[in-house]
Amino acid sequence: MTERVLIKNLAALEDGPVSVSGWVDTVRDQKKVQFVVLRDESGAVQLVNPRTTDAEGVVVADEPATTISGLSQGSFITVTGELKHDERVKLGGIEIKLASVEVLSHAIPETPIAADSSLDKRMDWRFLDLRHPKQNLIFRIQTTFEHALRTYWVNNDFIEIHTPKLMASASESRAELFEVEYFDTKAYLAQSPQFFKQMSQAAGFGKVFEIGPAFRADPSFTSRHSTEFTSIDAEISWIDSHEDVMQLHEDLMVAGFTAVKEKHGDEIKALFDVEITVPTQPFPRIPLAEAKEIVKSRGYEVPREDDDMDPEGERQIAAYVKETFDHEFVFLTDYASSIRPFYHMRHEGDAGLTNSYDLIFNGVEISTGAQREHRIDVLTEQAVEKGMEPEELEFYLDFFRYGVPSHGGFGMGLARVLMLMLHQTSIREVTYLFRGPTRLLP
Amino acid sequence: MTERVLIKNLAALEDGPVSVSGWVDTVRDQKKVQFVVLRDESGAVQLVNPRTTDAEGVVVADEPATTISGLSQGSFITVTGELKHDERVKLGGIEIKLASVEVLSHAIPETPIAADSSLDKRMDWRFLDLRHPKQNLIFRIQTTFEHALRTYWVNNDFIEIHTPKLMASASESRAELFEVEYFDTKAYLAQSPQFFKQMSQAAGFGKVFEIGPAFRADPSFTSRHSTEFTSIDAEISWIDSHEDVMQLHEDLMVAGFTAVKEKHGDEIKALFDVEITVPTQPFPRIPLAEAKEIVKSRGYEVPREDDDMDPEGERQIAAYVKETFDHEFVFLTDYASSIRPFYHMRHEGDAGLTNSYDLIFNGVEISTGAQREHRIDVLTEQAVEKGMEPEELEFYLDFFRYGVPSHGGFGMGLARVLMLMLHQTSIREVTYLFRGPTRLLP
Repeated sequence: MTERVLIKNLAALEDGPVSVSGWVDTVRDQKKVQFVVLRDESGAVQLVNPRTTDAEGVVVADEPATTISGLSQGSFITVTGELKHDERVKLGGIEIKLASVEVLSHAIPETPIAADSSLDKRMDWRFLDLRHPKQNLIFRIQTTFEHALRTYWVNNDFIEIHTPKLMASASESRAELFEVEYFDTKAYLAQSPQFFKQMSQAAGFGKVFEIGPAFRADPSFTSRHSTEFTSIDAEISWIDSHEDVMQLHEDLMVAGFTAVKEKHGDEIKALFDVEITVPTQPFPRIPLAEAKEIVKSRGYEVPREDDDMDPEGERQIAAYVKETFDHEFVFLTDYASSIRPFYHMRHEGDAGLTNSYDLIFNGVEISTGAQREHRIDVLTEQAVEKGMEPEELEFYLDFFRYGVPSHGGFGMGLARVLMLMLHQTSIREVTYLFRGPTRLLP
Repeated sequence: MTERVLIKNLAALEDGPVSVSGWVDTVRDQKKVQFVVLRDESGAVQLVNPRTTDAEGVVVADEPATTISGLSQGSFITVTGELKHDERVKLGGIEIKLASVEVLSHAIPETPIAADSSLDKRMDWRFLDLRHPKQNLIFRIQTTFEHALRTYWVNNDFIEIHTPKLMASASESRAELFEVEYFDTKAYLAQSPQFFKQMSQAAGFGKVFEIGPAFRADPSFTSRHSTEFTSIDAEISWIDSHEDVMQLHEDLMVAGFTAVKEKHGDEIKALFDVEITVPTQPFPRIPLAEAKEIVKSRGYEVPREDDDMDPEGERQIAAYVKETFDHEFVFLTDYASSIRPFYHMRHEGDAGLTNSYDLIFNGVEISTGAQREHRIDVLTEQAVEKGMEPEELEFYLDFFRYGVPSHGGFGMGLARVLMLMLHQTSIREVTYLFRGPTRLLP
């Protein structure tokens, strides 16, 4: 039997017998010759079948002609034939002259979505939507990006942990919490691995990472929010401040973007018209208060009561950073304690500010990082001040009672990184199966 | 400032000033000299502080002596001092003569667990339990094992997917399903990524993998079950049978075990007294019916009404395989349709048997794999026969209506692999934070 060849590997082969498998993209069933464009996860190739004619020149209904005539778009087939290099063939300069066609599965001929279908409709039929080369590329980029991060971590002695997603209480706040029926009691879905990656610091793990799901019962319908998302998390011991976390974060982004550019840069340019830029180090750092002044001087006043940025403010500061430093990333630092969780460490001598940052990429926040408060008395005080229930936090506060190093880390949304990297307008485009308040299917 | 050095890297340094950080393992506060064993995530080192005496030879209460006297076990400290190589020091042939000690965090002196504490008690204080070198090693092995698998996948053109854990209906069965309050409706926690990794096959992804959490509302308290576990999943297109899945599975186990043996083999031998064996290929394969005969001929009759194995049967067949083939792994194949899910493909010509397998490692099942039924008519029939609700399955059945290649894959429990690799008696020992019917904390 001829081994299946990925379409992307055909061009490097010499002319001769091959077998490829994939789904039917288009059929041109002409009088004298049939053409099929076959697609697999790696590319597309033209199949050709000159029809047989009898002595009088009349077309004969033989195989594989009859099978080809019956092929609906989307059907999965395995074909054998002769590979031929031919510069005149627009699609990659190769074609396969068919010998046999085996249909694994016939598709319903009426495809429920088209190129101009709405995003929501495309999500209804996500498995068909994902057949497009652009969508396929997104998940190959995801694969490469994540592997580059993990390789960095493994090479730098990080330990991979899998923290539980079922918790006895809230990890971030009582708001936006999913409740689970858990035998005779209730459990809650983890909003982040925060408490458990901090636990690893008390456990002496030193440096840890996790890429896994997190859940927020967020009723909003923005292009940046979902109820379930993939969170990229790291936490490290013995830091002096959040500056150490930012340096790690930079290293990781450089590793990820370098790998993506090397492996997919040309394809991304061709399919998304985006040039991947590997960011230079150090990334710009701007304290939040200063950033708000800069935004104001550009004519935009952040219309918020609290000390936070808003999406337009983030876009403005990103535009400033792009113009001034030619950089797509910026760390906004030193957020006010009032808008940060209780576990962020505050400035020594100014409890109004935290040792924390947001990372902004192409105008949108993709991550929050911070040094954590590891002093049990200060931590408890901050929790109470934020209105947390100390009883529910006892198990967490215990982590700090038996010794813990200084530490910090970040959580980053994978979909946001991909969305902004590829200049997409919604995380729905880069999420395998999006989950929102009104979407649980497919 | 002297940069922090990991303890495992000290031995390779020349004598001179160093800084190390970690937690206090033991303090021997003697009259003339103080000894501290300091531990970090990479190892342990002896710190020494000869006490200062005045002109009359009386010990002076100076620093760092006073600080050292006050150190409780578990406190996290950063020290500076002079590294000295000295063959007489039992602990690695090195010690650090202290210059300064900075206490980051004092531990409560009374440690709630001891070496002989029960497993349940140790789980209550998991963050302290994990400080032990054996526990730490388990998670470094986990890191290495997973990275080897992912590297294999990435090098072989697999795509990494993150399937949703929130679903509109059951993925395996209505039994053992966790229900989530989801805005105005209900959601369910994914029992496996089964449906969604199959969706990737219809989407033309070809080969995919995922390592992520799965949830089972399983009320049992065995050493092999938990309500939340890390599932290692792969799914591939264009297979001829489950044999192709088994070959992939073998390759992955060899990659994982090779990496673990190379990186941690000596440590595993030292701490667990276990010799890691990289399995030879092919792994033995035994059809289930034959396996039951073998077990019977060894004097054990599986006391089950259905056609399945039981734990003792699995141990017996593993013993047979070890004796006969000197192999720790065995694929039991061709399970009866009656005990397999509706989506397993059945034998052509014998619908009573499936194209499926279980992988047994050291006597315990660690994985189930199968070729999937991709023919929509057969699939629907099998679902109805198994009592599934066709309405709830519509979204899944749609995946097969618009074309799908032949495909198959497996799901494997990470904790079971680690438990059996290290000859542990419970998955609780190798799970970062175990979740069971009565355990949601910490």
